[in-house]
Amino acid sequence: MTQGEIYYEGNEKTVYLTDEKNVVLFHFKDVVTAFHNVKTTRLANKGVVCNKISALLMNFLQQNGVETHFLKLLSDREQLCKKIEIVPLFIVVRNYVAGSLAKRLDLEVGSKPSCTIYNLHYNNDLLGDPLISDTEAVALGLVNEEELGHVYAETSRVNRLLTGLCDKAGLKLVDFKLEFGRDASTGKLIVSDEISPDTSRFWDAATDEILDKDRFRHDLGYIVAHYETVLNKLEAAVAA
Amino acid sequence: MTQGEIYYEGNEKTVYLTDEKNVVLFHFKDVVTAFHNVKTTRLANKGVVCNKISALLMNFLQQNGVETHFLKLLSDREQLCKKIEIVPLFIVVRNYVAGSLAKRLDLEVGSKPSCTIYNLHYNNDLLGDPLISDTEAVALGLVNEEELGHVYAETSRVNRLLTGLCDKAGLKLVDFKLEFGRDASTGKLIVSDEISPDTSRFWDAATDEILDKDRFRHDLGYIVAHYETVLNKLEAAVAA
Repeated sequence: MTQGEIYYEGNEKTVYLTDEKNVVLFHFKDVVTAFHNVKTTRLANKGVVCNKISALLMNFLQQNGVETHFLKLLSDREQLCKKIEIVPLFIVVRNYVAGSLAKRLDLEVGSKPSCTIYNLHYNNDLLGDPLISDTEAVALGLVNEEELGHVYAETSRVNRLLTGLCDKAGLKLVDFKLEFGRDASTGKLIVSDEISPDTSRFWDAATDEILDKDRFRHDLGYIVAHYETVLNKLEAAVAA
Repeated sequence: MTQGEIYYEGNEKTVYLTDEKNVVLFHFKDVVTAFHNVKTTRLANKGVVCNKISALLMNFLQQNGVETHFLKLLSDREQLCKKIEIVPLFIVVRNYVAGSLAKRLDLEVGSKPSCTIYNLHYNNDLLGDPLISDTEAVALGLVNEEELGHVYAETSRVNRLLTGLCDKAGLKLVDFKLEFGRDASTGKLIVSDEISPDTSRFWDAATDEILDKDRFRHDLGYIVAHYETVLNKLEAAVAA
């Protein structure tokens, strides 16, 4: 396996082509960004912890029948993944109220909605990643109706699996973002990108202590140490 | 039928209780408002034209099997309606791109999306009537899942019926807002409020001339005269 040209360069990750067709290499950086890149900094070891957490969670999902882009962990900062075509869409799953939802609909942070909330967003920096309706996702040509049904069904399954794992780990999965990509060889939509405290909110189940990127957003300090807590708890839950 | 106390006072309408249980009287005023009431003025006869258009359209929908709150036209400015409990939710149906949608998703005004767009909004002035997802409507307790299915199905039927009528009238139904209320006697969700050039965008099918509240929003003048054009065209189409 030889690392090739850059396929995609993000703030927090670089994706490289490899000499194997339809296989890419994810490199996790130590950069953290928030508020549409207005706030950004370097945090030693953050990339290592996010790489490990995302690999663990993707692996767990795959063992439970969810198709993801993940192939294997390569090193502390690197993982091999299937090459996907990016679908500029993400879906946010909210088991508890936090972040923008609290302000947007005047709901209490930490409260549990009577049903799980799903928010579809158009992944478009210039437009501010706006919330969109199902029909808008189709009208924009991001997905067709059948694919959108698949996205919702898979997302719901991922939520059931991850909340189950987090329960075992003593973590509250407050919310998380899921991206889907089109498998370069089959064209099928599969779970891709990253699942980590950078893209999800994890709270300690007993104390509601914040263990995710909100520590960076709101200057709570000890960011990577708390990400490591998430990793340790998840590793223990998977091993149990 | 005796007019009683005010049941609801809006900027553009006043709703009175009557001596008949579960019957209210709508009085259409000559006030027009836009941009969340930032822009407002009086326009002679506007209330009369909107009353007549809304009565005509509600009547047309009912004759085609859609349950609405409308009972009968009483006078130039008044109509009798079933008393409903307001559901703070509205749905916007978009057959063509216009208004906020163009800016929000960077789409061309007047273009036709590949599928009809439905946008659900939380009717809440303080929060700016935000776009919400289906699960948010349920989580907010506005409707249950079954009711939301009914709202979408009825809205789709209303759109088919109204676009058919507008086609006959030489009008383009660009978009419209629909509100639903809970029937005070049955609890069922029925089409309520108003359908008029104040709540819908009508363009001349041949010339794309604007015949709706956008004339007020964008200072195009001759507002009520153009509303009257809509009324005349609809009356001719219904009579044909």
